[in-house]
Amino acid sequence: MKKVLIIGIGAGNPDYVTMQAVKALNEVDVFFVLDKGEVKEDLVKLRTTVCERFITDHPYRVVEVASPMRNTGDPDYKSGVRSWHDEKAAIFSRFIATELKEGQVGGILIWGDPSLYDSTIRVLQQIIADGKIAFDYEVIPGITSVQALAAQHKIALNAIGEPVHTTTGRKLLEGLPQGVDTVVVMLDNGSGIRALADEDVDIYWGAYLGTPDEVLISGKLAERVDEIERIRADLRARKGWIMDTYLLRRTPDR
Amino acid sequence: MKKVLIIGIGAGNPDYVTMQAVKALNEVDVFFVLDKGEVKEDLVKLRTTVCERFITDHPYRVVEVASPMRNTGDPDYKSGVRSWHDEKAAIFSRFIATELKEGQVGGILIWGDPSLYDSTIRVLQQIIADGKIAFDYEVIPGITSVQALAAQHKIALNAIGEPVHTTTGRKLLEGLPQGVDTVVVMLDNGSGIRALADEDVDIYWGAYLGTPDEVLISGKLAERVDEIERIRADLRARKGWIMDTYLLRRTPDR
Ligand SMILES: C[S@@+](CC[C@H](N)C(=O)[O-])C[C@H]1O[C@@H](n2cnc3c(N)ncnc32)[C@H](O)[C@@H]1O
Ligand SMILES: C[S@@+](CC[C@H](N)C(=O)[O-])C[C@H]1O[C@@H](n2cnc3c(N)ncnc32)[C@H](O)[C@@H]1O
Repeated sequence: MKKVLIIGIGAGNPDYVTMQAVKALNEVDVFFVLDKGEVKEDLVKLRTTVCERFITDHPYRVVEVASPMRNTGDPDYKSGVRSWHDEKAAIFSRFIATELKEGQVGGILIWGDPSLYDSTIRVLQQIIADGKIAFDYEVIPGITSVQALAAQHKIALNAIGEPVHTTTGRKLLEGLPQGVDTVVVMLDNGSGIRALADEDVDIYWGAYLGTPDEVLISGKLAERVDEIERIRADLRARKGWIMDTYLLRRTPDR
Repeated sequence: MKKVLIIGIGAGNPDYVTMQAVKALNEVDVFFVLDKGEVKEDLVKLRTTVCERFITDHPYRVVEVASPMRNTGDPDYKSGVRSWHDEKAAIFSRFIATELKEGQVGGILIWGDPSLYDSTIRVLQQIIADGKIAFDYEVIPGITSVQALAAQHKIALNAIGEPVHTTTGRKLLEGLPQGVDTVVVMLDNGSGIRALADEDVDIYWGAYLGTPDEVLISGKLAERVDEIERIRADLRARKGWIMDTYLLRRTPDR
């Protein structure tokens, strides 16, 4: 049987790699890399660092394929995502069918944790459901950008005994979720934070978490939002890409 | 300056330890352990394994203190938690004042990630706010039981582009949170899952995640809830303690 390991390598800091991931890395014969244009350089660098630093006793090769782009013009967000997943499924199928021999192990490195806003698990499940090729797969968790955010700001995600609502920038356009005091936001292109600028909440913001370029800002959202937007635009222009995550909390926490 | 490292060691599997945690473990002069009666044996075993396996080049000692018990009789949940935190703050203060010399490093090992339903960060912040003793501290993230749950069930936490609501069993007594299709539940003594038994949701349940005793069950909640309750009671009786986490999802995910 062929096997695919979906390996979370943590968000940004190579030291976020777990011992489990190190063991998994050392089992992989062929790494499969979907190459995303813009963010390429730094992300590829992390992957290379991780492989070079932690793979000590196993020969491996790397297969790179240009990542399909999501059709952001599709007015239906989910149908846009679904056809993007179909394209990825076709690419991964080809990889498993042609690049992996029986008994070999393929590896897919995931930024952060494979279970959080990442399509790889779903895409592999889709391939298995299609039933055209047979393989096993396993998921290895990794430190998420949300955990990096909390650790670097030295905060708990939850207020005492209270829920944590994790969502996307796009969802914030509908307003701050009701009935929760803590909201964690990922995948915000800048419009989500702007939509909430007048809310009476504290913000804990982080960009390039875990990397040497990490930036942390915290305070009352209303007092920090302009600064965050300015810094975000600057950083984005300078590096060509940005990844930022933030936590909003309604009541001051003790 | 004295320094305290709050080190997430992951939930259950010693291989969840990160390289960052290994480095931190190797800086610690004195580990401080709050000993919780019931769950003692297995949890102490994980801590001992982690220290013995990963500390290679630093002498250390371990200070154990019985953990204060939360007064579960307090009708006000939060005030009960607050006075419990006050007691912990007193214990940690004494530890830092008397067991750590200037320039030494104290270590507190946290099950899972220190930012998720754990009081240690808050307690140290409270000590610093009190201003009686001075020290630095750092937080090292760890793989949470939620990530272990997702990885072992091979599922994404979020449905495509949708939020993830993480909450406690106690909160579920108020019903399934509105407006979210995914709810992750921790700290359920069994009453939360029972309260939702009639909801039309899928459940992905896991106990003792990451350990050799791990149990996974998934399916329609209504069809699985009796089995989960039975197995939960059995396991609990057999081992003397149980830790379980589960994910509920309203709509079938693609
Ligand atoms: C497609 S999601 C992937 C999340 C990833 N699987 C994880 O576990 O963090 C990408 C989003 O994650 C967040 N993110 C990922 N890495 C980050 C980092 N190093 N610093 C800040 N945010 C990050 C940003 O919100 C970004 O828009
Ligand atoms: C006080 S909280 C601590 C959570 C921890 N900081 C984490 O990151 O997972 C304890 C709750 O975490 C969950 N939990 C912790 N470890 C677990 C494990 N190995 N298996 C299943 N659930 C676990 C259970 O819901 C338990 O009630």
